Amino acid sequence: MEVLFTFVPKDHQQEMLEKEFPNVDFHFTKQDKSRLSHAEIVVTYGEDLTAEDIEKAANLKWIMVASAGVEKMPHKAILEKGITVSNVRGIHKIPMAESVLAHLLSIKRSLPTIYEKQTQREWHRKIRSSELSGSTALIIGPGAIGGEIGRLLQAFGVSTIGCNRSGKQADYMNEMVSFENILEVLPKADTVISVVPSTEETRGMLGSEHFKAMKSQAIFMNFGRGDLVPDDVLVKALNDGEIGYAVLDVFEQEPLPSDHPLWGMENVVVSPHVSSHSGRYVERALEIFAPNLKKWLENNSDLTNQVNMEKGY
Amino acid sequence: MEVLFTFVPKDHQQEMLEKEFPNVDFHFTKQDKSRLSHAEIVVTYGEDLTAEDIEKAANLKWIMVASAGVEKMPHKAILEKGITVSNVRGIHKIPMAESVLAHLLSIKRSLPTIYEKQTQREWHRKIRSSELSGSTALIIGPGAIGGEIGRLLQAFGVSTIGCNRSGKQADYMNEMVSFENILEVLPKADTVISVVPSTEETRGMLGSEHFKAMKSQAIFMNFGRGDLVPDDVLVKALNDGEIGYAVLDVFEQEPLPSDHPLWGMENVVVSPHVSSHSGRYVERALEIFAPNLKKWLENNSDLTNQVNMEKGY
Repeated sequence: MEVLFTFVPKDHQQEMLEKEFPNVDFHFTKQDKSRLSHAEIVVTYGEDLTAEDIEKAANLKWIMVASAGVEKMPHKAILEKGITVSNVRGIHKIPMAESVLAHLLSIKRSLPTIYEKQTQREWHRKIRSSELSGSTALIIGPGAIGGEIGRLLQAFGVSTIGCNRSGKQADYMNEMVSFENILEVLPKADTVISVVPSTEETRGMLGSEHFKAMKSQAIFMNFGRGDLVPDDVLVKALNDGEIGYAVLDVFEQEPLPSDHPLWGMENVVVSPHVSSHSGRYVERALEIFAPNLKKWLENNSDLTNQVNMEKGY
Repeated sequence: MEVLFTFVPKDHQQEMLEKEFPNVDFHFTKQDKSRLSHAEIVVTYGEDLTAEDIEKAANLKWIMVASAGVEKMPHKAILEKGITVSNVRGIHKIPMAESVLAHLLSIKRSLPTIYEKQTQREWHRKIRSSELSGSTALIIGPGAIGGEIGRLLQAFGVSTIGCNRSGKQADYMNEMVSFENILEVLPKADTVISVVPSTEETRGMLGSEHFKAMKSQAIFMNFGRGDLVPDDVLVKALNDGEIGYAVLDVFEQEPLPSDHPLWGMENVVVSPHVSSHSGRYVERALEIFAPNLKKWLENNSDLTNQVNMEKGY
């Protein structure tokens, strides 16, 4: 039985897999899809498979995506062939929550100013720092990642409002609201953080009326997907002073074109979709993959983190 | 009875005091000490009183320092005249702990690189981010501020080691060590954070042997007082790769001279002694002062946050 990796784990990680599964024929490649027609399982970052690939992959039964988003996958072709898809949702929660807190605290505690004044060797103490403690945050998408963000925010004395489809209670949220009632809570939030995936419901979910409803000092953070809000709506909201700051890890178009206005705006941080980066990423992905592979070999179809390709998550 | 402020609280704060204490004669001044000989109480940031001032201040019985450090005060003169001193220790804990976490997370999550690449409009994804989670931190001075730092670090999954004079258990520390045994734990710490005041025991407490004992990737953070370690020892440790990074809010000489090598070092953050800054600072100081003043007027000498001027804290 063949397993094709379209990325290359570290040597000791490859050896660990080969030792644990001596009867499995592993191919670790750098996006080399030449063995795709032989593989029963493909392990991929989810950005390198086309509908034609799926067509050719005669033996493919399971795609393990070592990423959380599956929107770049050929959904229709995968659904038609009844291929199982699983992902690594949850493994991003620690690095992403740390990134969100890093950016938020950095703004509150004036780090961009401190860094800039250091380059000028200027002992500049007229810094207007504020506190995260005592503020209110709205978390759009209080799932695994959003919940971890909520847990950390609460430790800092932040009141958390979760916003999901149903408005049903989620972990580490002091209060909940449904997607359709989001306008009611936006005026209360000092920080608005989105970590939702790209789905039919979230694409274009935020428009100018939402930014108008936010506090003029609000910090808007998009760490989910760039299609949540059109870039031009966001640029206008910032230019019109409807919000105070934006920290963006995702964009409508990635890479963000070098002539895009967001790059040069003073109250914007452009993070090049790196918030989930971690030196421990592949290690954690394999911790999810190995037990799933064991189940697969035992014909146990109850895989962890299976993705419903019709819903897209 | 006269109370002299050598700084000026906001109007509504002045009014609040005048309303609460109608029989007290408040003078709110900008470091104007002309009424010093009349005042029974002086409220100061602790940097503007000389031994001569204390000499002249015939009626002075209580100095309320709206700061945590009292090392710039004329200790001898104050002790000789038996003047009561109190401070606002504890009110720094939230802004300072947030600053420490901000700087630490910023480094772990590559914010300095993200900010720099943004100025070049460069979509730079080859960023080596790591995680705070799973690391070990040594906190020198696990008091009010150090404990708050420990509490937050533990929320991030960090193992905390507290280091104080006695080695006795302190809040939010997984492990404790005494000052004299600090060398034993330095090799374990990914982050070494000092928040100790300047006392006889802490001045020059860290020398080159301590930096040699640290991990080569260790992040050293001094948010206490600059005399904990000679600047040249620190510069050498960084240049020799004995530690990986330093974040400094305090220095031997403040302001840090503009030709000082620390300003220009790549793995150093120079923060101009602003980590305790907060828009809520005076508000919190007055929340400590007002109840103390009430006690004072009732001849109750059990003031909150009294300072032992012989020990210096």
